[in-house]
Amino acid sequence: MELRGVRLAVLAAISWPAPPPGYGPWEQIAFNVADGMRRRGLDVTLFATGNSHFDGKIVSVVPVGLNEDPALNVEVFTALHTGELFARAHEFDLINNHFDWKPLTYALGSSAPPMLTTVHGFSSPQILAAYYAAAARSFYCSISNADRDPGLDYLATTYNGIDPEQFTFRERAGEYLCFLGRFHPEKGTHLAIEIAKRAGVRLKIAAIPQDEAYFREAVAPHIDGDRVQFLGAVEREARDELLGNALALVHMTTRPERFGLTMIEAMACGTPVLGARMGSIPEIVVDAVTGYLCDDVADAVAKVPLLASLDRRACRARVVAEFSVERMIDRYAEAYVKALELRLPPPPSEEKLRERRHDWWDRPMAYTEIPPKPENLRFS
Amino acid sequence: MELRGVRLAVLAAISWPAPPPGYGPWEQIAFNVADGMRRRGLDVTLFATGNSHFDGKIVSVVPVGLNEDPALNVEVFTALHTGELFARAHEFDLINNHFDWKPLTYALGSSAPPMLTTVHGFSSPQILAAYYAAAARSFYCSISNADRDPGLDYLATTYNGIDPEQFTFRERAGEYLCFLGRFHPEKGTHLAIEIAKRAGVRLKIAAIPQDEAYFREAVAPHIDGDRVQFLGAVEREARDELLGNALALVHMTTRPERFGLTMIEAMACGTPVLGARMGSIPEIVVDAVTGYLCDDVADAVAKVPLLASLDRRACRARVVAEFSVERMIDRYAEAYVKALELRLPPPPSEEKLRERRHDWWDRPMAYTEIPPKPENLRFS
Repeated sequence: MELRGVRLAVLAAISWPAPPPGYGPWEQIAFNVADGMRRRGLDVTLFATGNSHFDGKIVSVVPVGLNEDPALNVEVFTALHTGELFARAHEFDLINNHFDWKPLTYALGSSAPPMLTTVHGFSSPQILAAYYAAAARSFYCSISNADRDPGLDYLATTYNGIDPEQFTFRERAGEYLCFLGRFHPEKGTHLAIEIAKRAGVRLKIAAIPQDEAYFREAVAPHIDGDRVQFLGAVEREARDELLGNALALVHMTTRPERFGLTMIEAMACGTPVLGARMGSIPEIVVDAVTGYLCDDVADAVAKVPLLASLDRRACRARVVAEFSVERMIDRYAEAYVKALELRLPPPPSEEKLRERRHDWWDRPMAYTEIPPKPENLRFS
Repeated sequence: MELRGVRLAVLAAISWPAPPPGYGPWEQIAFNVADGMRRRGLDVTLFATGNSHFDGKIVSVVPVGLNEDPALNVEVFTALHTGELFARAHEFDLINNHFDWKPLTYALGSSAPPMLTTVHGFSSPQILAAYYAAAARSFYCSISNADRDPGLDYLATTYNGIDPEQFTFRERAGEYLCFLGRFHPEKGTHLAIEIAKRAGVRLKIAAIPQDEAYFREAVAPHIDGDRVQFLGAVEREARDELLGNALALVHMTTRPERFGLTMIEAMACGTPVLGARMGSIPEIVVDAVTGYLCDDVADAVAKVPLLASLDRRACRARVVAEFSVERMIDRYAEAYVKALELRLPPPPSEEKLRERRHDWWDRPMAYTEIPPKPENLRFS
């Protein structure tokens, strides 16, 4: 099937403009998809904030990002942004929703064209109720094979992609480990610190605040400006330098990672990843080629001496081959063709229905912690 | 036009079941409308919580009220409850929305039948954005003539109604004033206290907590168990007795009241209202007949000696004639006929468009306080 000329609506998140000037992964992905499809000849309309920049058509109901002006009522503009898409749905051949689960509840009563929802995350188990309810109305894409709910059918895995040209390849391995992300136990900053200390290697941390108590108790006491350095949040050149000059990125999560953009950013610079063997990490890191998959802290410590001998070219090559924006666009294009051919998802199988664990009717779902896995990766 | 047999969907709020066992005014009104229309021969489906009780059809996506089980995710079930209505919209001839503004954003992209939204309140000026956006899609009813946004067209005023038989008429005027409601400066508990003290009359207060600092500073210091008595929250018989044995209900609001259910409850008992001349109060209270409309505290104090000579039968009669459930159903029935004949609202006039004061595009709306009016009714 020819995608050229297909009228595509891309619904972006509106916490930030698209593309976002700094943080804003959902807006960035939606922008990359919209822009990639525009370059491939689709007739793309991006639903995004009014201060977004896109070489195709933009539709906006909110002037700036909801995080940019605290006076804006998040509920009101979330609903109007979504409502506007469905009000214009008949103008499109296909909708790609990057704006979480609420648009699914609008799709239930809409005669909109085929719709594909990229599941960027499950913020609460209860939002599964919306995914289940709309399973016959929207196709779903996961951002890794690991990040799939067993009660849902998925049309495709559409890994996130980056532009490798935005990252400088450095051939020589550096001498420090680095941690990049946000301060939350599930990101395992405390494990990165423990590994660096036990391996006798310097650690540089660049992260945004999230869980303050965690930072205060598990991270801050170790920061000494020498063995453990904290650089604050880093963007663009600083990020490129921090990643590119490192021996490895430490990504020892304590809960399954959905995708993990920092890993492919590091690899684009040639820097391998020391990662936990859980979630999406085994799909991104090729063990003993672009980093190491570790079962616990001791395993990771044992792998540190091996990092410098990995071929940094292989790291870069893996990103170019599998995790570039163009590769992401390829995957979305394949999913779009399938969605346009099928029009609507088939009804879920009996097996999928059996897997729908959360019965919010008989027993309202409480927030269920996903247990850390493997067991020995714990907040020490 | 004959309404018998019309397939009506009533979308209730889901904080509580319909009807609610205690507090829950929106659920109560939606239930009363659904039940009244069912009694008049319409084919009614009530969208409400699973523990609701209705002699027609009920559709539920949530087992109990969102306020009854804190484990339920309010956003998820609000969206699914609304989405379910629009998913079934083709099964109905008419939709009456009592679930605030969000369903309007669903209506934008829906080919649902004629829809009538009862505006129970404007919780934030920004929700006007949704009312404006959907003005060509849903008809609007206000719950008083006073509670209308100048930028919107309204199909009708559908005053709330009560069942007068639920309230005992008492012929003899009591000797105390009473205040019923919630502790918030806009409800004017402090003014009721001042009026009672200056008039030398006892005050009995029954209210639910809301603004704690206000209660602590402006109300609690005056409670002495004698001249100013606080009874907590009262329901059913206790409420009936408190209202029925009073000389008058004091309702000196400092911001325009939208409707004011307690006033018609008092009047149903034969008890007149000492009310502020603002908002909906002049539509409900007939000055010098079912109470007094007061310009300020001094005016109200001067009216206290006149209260006992008002004809308490006139108070009851006004409720039976104008504010009964049956009268409310009459008003809704008229509005339904209009909506079914017109199908869609006409486009707003230039004049209405000019009145749309809140321009959230050029200048995001900050929450604007409605100034107290008259000026001398202030939080002392």
